[in-house]
Amino acid sequence: VIPSEDAHGSEYVAPSDKRREWISGFTGSAGQAIVSKTQAYLITDSRYWLQAQKELDENWHLIAAGAPEAPKDWVEWLVDRAKNSKIGIDARMITHEKASQLSAQLAAKGSKLIYPPQNLVDLLWKDKPQRSKERIFIQGREFTGKDATAKLAELREWIKAQPPATLSYSQAPPTPAQVHVGTLISSLASIAYLLNLRGQDIPYNPVFQAYLYVGLDRAILFIEAAKVDEEVSRYLEGLNVERRDYNDIWTFLRRREWKEGKVIISPQTSYAISLMLTHLRYTVLPSYVEEMKAVKNEVEIEGMRRAYLRDGVAFVRWFAWLEQKLQQGYEITEYEAAYRLTEFRRHQKHFMDLAYENISASGPNAALPHYTPTRATARVIDRETPYLNDSGGQYRDGTCDTTRTVHFGRPTDEQCEAFTRVLQGHIAIDSAIFPEGTTGKALDVLARRALWQDGMNYMHGTGHGVGSYLNVHEGPHGFGIDVPLVPGNVITNEPGYYNAGKWGIRIESALVVKRVTTKREFNGDIWLGFDRLTCVPIQTKMVKESMLTKEEKAWLKVRHLVTT
Amino acid sequence: VIPSEDAHGSEYVAPSDKRREWISGFTGSAGQAIVSKTQAYLITDSRYWLQAQKELDENWHLIAAGAPEAPKDWVEWLVDRAKNSKIGIDARMITHEKASQLSAQLAAKGSKLIYPPQNLVDLLWKDKPQRSKERIFIQGREFTGKDATAKLAELREWIKAQPPATLSYSQAPPTPAQVHVGTLISSLASIAYLLNLRGQDIPYNPVFQAYLYVGLDRAILFIEAAKVDEEVSRYLEGLNVERRDYNDIWTFLRRREWKEGKVIISPQTSYAISLMLTHLRYTVLPSYVEEMKAVKNEVEIEGMRRAYLRDGVAFVRWFAWLEQKLQQGYEITEYEAAYRLTEFRRHQKHFMDLAYENISASGPNAALPHYTPTRATARVIDRETPYLNDSGGQYRDGTCDTTRTVHFGRPTDEQCEAFTRVLQGHIAIDSAIFPEGTTGKALDVLARRALWQDGMNYMHGTGHGVGSYLNVHEGPHGFGIDVPLVPGNVITNEPGYYNAGKWGIRIESALVVKRVTTKREFNGDIWLGFDRLTCVPIQTKMVKESMLTKEEKAWLKVRHLVTT
Repeated sequence: VIPSEDAHGSEYVAPSDKRREWISGFTGSAGQAIVSKTQAYLITDSRYWLQAQKELDENWHLIAAGAPEAPKDWVEWLVDRAKNSKIGIDARMITHEKASQLSAQLAAKGSKLIYPPQNLVDLLWKDKPQRSKERIFIQGREFTGKDATAKLAELREWIKAQPPATLSYSQAPPTPAQVHVGTLISSLASIAYLLNLRGQDIPYNPVFQAYLYVGLDRAILFIEAAKVDEEVSRYLEGLNVERRDYNDIWTFLRRREWKEGKVIISPQTSYAISLMLTHLRYTVLPSYVEEMKAVKNEVEIEGMRRAYLRDGVAFVRWFAWLEQKLQQGYEITEYEAAYRLTEFRRHQKHFMDLAYENISASGPNAALPHYTPTRATARVIDRETPYLNDSGGQYRDGTCDTTRTVHFGRPTDEQCEAFTRVLQGHIAIDSAIFPEGTTGKALDVLARRALWQDGMNYMHGTGHGVGSYLNVHEGPHGFGIDVPLVPGNVITNEPGYYNAGKWGIRIESALVVKRVTTKREFNGDIWLGFDRLTCVPIQTKMVKESMLTKEEKAWLKVRHLVTT
Repeated sequence: VIPSEDAHGSEYVAPSDKRREWISGFTGSAGQAIVSKTQAYLITDSRYWLQAQKELDENWHLIAAGAPEAPKDWVEWLVDRAKNSKIGIDARMITHEKASQLSAQLAAKGSKLIYPPQNLVDLLWKDKPQRSKERIFIQGREFTGKDATAKLAELREWIKAQPPATLSYSQAPPTPAQVHVGTLISSLASIAYLLNLRGQDIPYNPVFQAYLYVGLDRAILFIEAAKVDEEVSRYLEGLNVERRDYNDIWTFLRRREWKEGKVIISPQTSYAISLMLTHLRYTVLPSYVEEMKAVKNEVEIEGMRRAYLRDGVAFVRWFAWLEQKLQQGYEITEYEAAYRLTEFRRHQKHFMDLAYENISASGPNAALPHYTPTRATARVIDRETPYLNDSGGQYRDGTCDTTRTVHFGRPTDEQCEAFTRVLQGHIAIDSAIFPEGTTGKALDVLARRALWQDGMNYMHGTGHGVGSYLNVHEGPHGFGIDVPLVPGNVITNEPGYYNAGKWGIRIESALVVKRVTTKREFNGDIWLGFDRLTCVPIQTKMVKESMLTKEEKAWLKVRHLVTT
C-alpha cells in the first residue's frame, strides 16, 4: 500500500514525499495506490474520479471509492479482498488509528500488515527530489497573539490534568509508570502553531518537517540542523526547547529517554511511533494542540480579517481585468487567468505564497471540483458556461480560501437555477444561528436543502477549518464532522453543483464563529452565529430572484455586486 | 438502581412493573431511582424536570439530567460518584448494552454491579398489582399485509446469512459451535409484530409479556398459559411455534436446549439473559425484527392512512365542540376536554384504546411537554394562552399520534411569533426532499432553524417512529438518530417551544417516507420525501403571515384550516 500522506499525516506533501504520485502518475491530493504481485490499483474519492481516469495509464485499475456498490475507502477494499494475505506498508505513512483498525480487520481474515524495513518506492525512485533544507522562521506575536511560552505552558497544564492510565480492574493508586509526563507531536501544523514557527518544506503549507516532544520538564524539537539559523536557534533556547536531528526521533523513542510515565500521542500519530513504544508507554488522546489551534484569538481573527480584505481586493481587481479582456474579445485560458490572479495577489502586503493551487475552470473542467489547469492543456474560458475560480493567498496574517463562479455570457435557465440553489444553501449557512454544542455536521443540511428540493447535490463536504498562516485545511471541526463549533473557529462555507461533462458551480466564503445576541435568548447566553471573512462580491447574473425569499434577497442586497 | 423499564426494555410498563413509580412517587415515563444507604435520588430528563419536582417528596433529591453542569444520564451520575462501591440492580431491568458499558466504567473506579437474587422493591411492595392475564389475539392479514409464516421465514434467512462468529486471529474454518442457529427476542413489540399477535398487558401498548426463541428448525413462545385461548393455540401450532410458560425461559437458557451454535441477541436484550449464557453462546447484533417492523408495507401504510383519517375526524369534531362550549362561556378543564376527546375517538371504527395518555394542557401546563391532567388538579382552559393537545388512538389498522395547539382568545405577539417559528420548522421537515442514506439526525436542524434564528429551541427530540397498531414510540429510526430513513418508515414531526411557567406550543403530524421524483434526479432515482398521515387542520390565528415565505404560505393554504 502506497498512501499519499507523509510521515506526519500531511494532506499536502513535499516533492520528496510524493511517492504515490510518482508510482501511479495520479496527481490528486488524496488517494492510495495498492500494488499486488500482478495488479496495480488506485483508489480515490469522488472529487478525483474523473481526474484519475485521465491521469492513470493502462497499467492501473481505478477504484471509485464511495460510488454505489463500491467500497467506501481503501481499507474496506483491502479487507474485502484479504484472505491469508500479507500486506506491506511503511508504518510511518499510516496513522496509529488507521493501522490499529486495519490490523484488527485483517486479522479476522487471517491476514496481517507487515512493515518492510525500507520504503519500497524509495528503493525504485532514482531521481527522487532532495529533502527540503529551507530555513524556518519566527511568526511574531503581532500575528499569533500569544507567545510560544504561553502555549507550551497551557499544553503542559493539559498533560498534567490527564488522569493516570490505570488498569481497568485495579483498585490500587496509580504507579509513577501510569502518570502522563509528556506528549509526542508529529503533526507539522501543530508543531508550527505551538512554537510560533513557520517553514517552507511543503508547497502552499508554511510548515516544516519535524517532531516535537513536550515533557513536563523538557521539550525537544527534532529537525534538520540546516533549517535552523542563528536567530531561530536563540529563540528555541529562550523557549527551553532542545534541538536534535530530525532522524534522532527514532533513537529517542528506542532509548525511552523520558523517565517513568506515559507519553500522550494523538490517533493521527504515525504507526511507526507507537510500534517503537509499547502500549505500556503511551496513551492515545485527541490532539489538544489541534483544539487550541482551531480557536483563533482576537489577534488571529483580526489578522484573518485583514488578509481576506487584501485577498479580496486582488480578487476583485483581477475579475475586472478578466471581464474587460473578455469583453474586448481576447481569448484567455484558465491557466493565464490563474497566473494573472496570482500576480494581483503578489502585490498585496504580507503575501507569502498561494494557500493551494489555483482552481480556475471553465466548462466541463468546472465540474471537476479539484481541477487545476496546466499551461499545456488549459481550456479557453468560454462565454456559454459558468467560470469557477477557487483560490486564496497565504499571508503572514492569514490563510485565504475563496470560490466565486461567474458567467461572462448569457446563462441558460438550468445554470441560473443551479446557481440560485447553491446560493440559497450558501446563505442558509452564512446566516445560521445555533446554540452552543451544535456540531458542523448538524448544520450541514442547511447548505443542501435548497439543492435537494430539486434533486441536486454535491458529493464533497460543505466546509473545513482554515489555518492562521498555516494549512488551508485544518481540524478538528468541519461541516461533516461531529465536533461542536465554538467561538473563534474559522470554517469555509462552500456548497456547489456539478453537471458532469458540462459545467460546475461553487460559492465559498470563510466564516468565523462568534457569539450573537438573539431575540429570546432561550437557555441564556448560548447562541452562536458566523461572521464572514471573505469580502469578494457574488455575481447576480445567474440569480433567479423569483426563487429567493425576502430574507435571501435582503442578504444579497447587503453585499456589493460585481456585475449585474 | 431502580430503572423504569420492565424485563423487556419497555418504555411503558404494566402496573405490576411500575417499581420506580411506586418507590419514588414520580409518575413520568422515563427516569431512574437510585437509593443509597442514606439518600434517595431520582434522575430524569428535561421533559420531566418540572413534573418530578412537583411529585417527589422531601425524601428525594431530583437530578436534572442534561441540564448545564449536570450529568447527561444516570450512568454518568453513578460512575462519577462510584469509588470502590457495590451497586445493586435487577439484571432483568437493564439492557445488555447498558450493563456492559456501565460495568466497564465502574470497574475503572474500583466498583462493580451486583445482582441481588430477588428484586428488592418487590420484597417491600405489599399491595403490588397482579400480573396481567389478559387474552392475546390474532392481528389478521388485512391489517398486517404479511403472514407470520413469511415473517418467520425472512428472519430465518437473516439468521442463516450472519457470518459465523470466528475468533479474531483464527485462520481455521468455523466450527459448528460458531455458527448461528437462532435468535432470542425479548422486545414485546418485536414478538407481537413477528407473530401477528396482540395483547393487553400494558396500557396503551397492545403487546403481551413473552419471550420468543426463533431457531432455524424450531420456535418457542414463552408466555403465561392463561393468556392463550383455543384459537390462538391452534394458530401457534399452525406456525410451528411451541408454547411454554413465561418463566420457563430461564430453564431453557440454563439447559441450553438448542444444539451446538450461537444465539443472536440484540443490545436491548436484558442483561439477565446474557448472564445466563456465556459469551461463547451468543452474538450481539442490532435487532433485525425491529428493522423489518419499521418498514411498513402497502397494507400497513394504507391502514395507517385510514386510521389517521378517522382519528382526525374525531379530533376535528371535538375541537368544534370545545370551541363552541368555550364561546358559550362554559368552563372546561383540561381533564374534561381530554375525556371528551376520547369519547369522540371511541365512536370511530376499529378503535381499541388510546395510544398514550392524553396530553391536554393550558397555560403553564403546556410548557411541560409530557403533562397529563388528572381530574383533581386539572386547570380550566383559559383564553389568554395557547391550549395544547397531544393525543391519538390505537386502532386495529394503525397507531395515531398528533399534536395541535390552538388559541381561544387574543394571542400576544410573543405567542404568535413562537407559533410561527414552530410552524416554520414543522413545514421545513414536512416538505423536505433528501437522498437515500440521509439519517433523521441529519434533517433535525430543519425543524429548529427558524426557532434558532430568534434564540428559541425545544429540549426534546423532533420525532420518533410509530407502530402499526403497536407502540407509539418505535425504532430504530428517529430525527435524533443516525439511522438512514427508508421508504415505509413512519415518523412524527413535532417541533415545539415552551415558555416555562407561562405557556407551550407544539405542532405534530405523523409522516411516512416515500420515493419522490425531483426536477434534476442527480445520482438517479434516489430521492425521498414525506407523505403526511395526520389529517387535522392547523389553526392560523397565531400565524404571523409576514414571517412566512411564499412556499410556507402556499403550504398552509393547501391545508384546510380549523379557524381563522
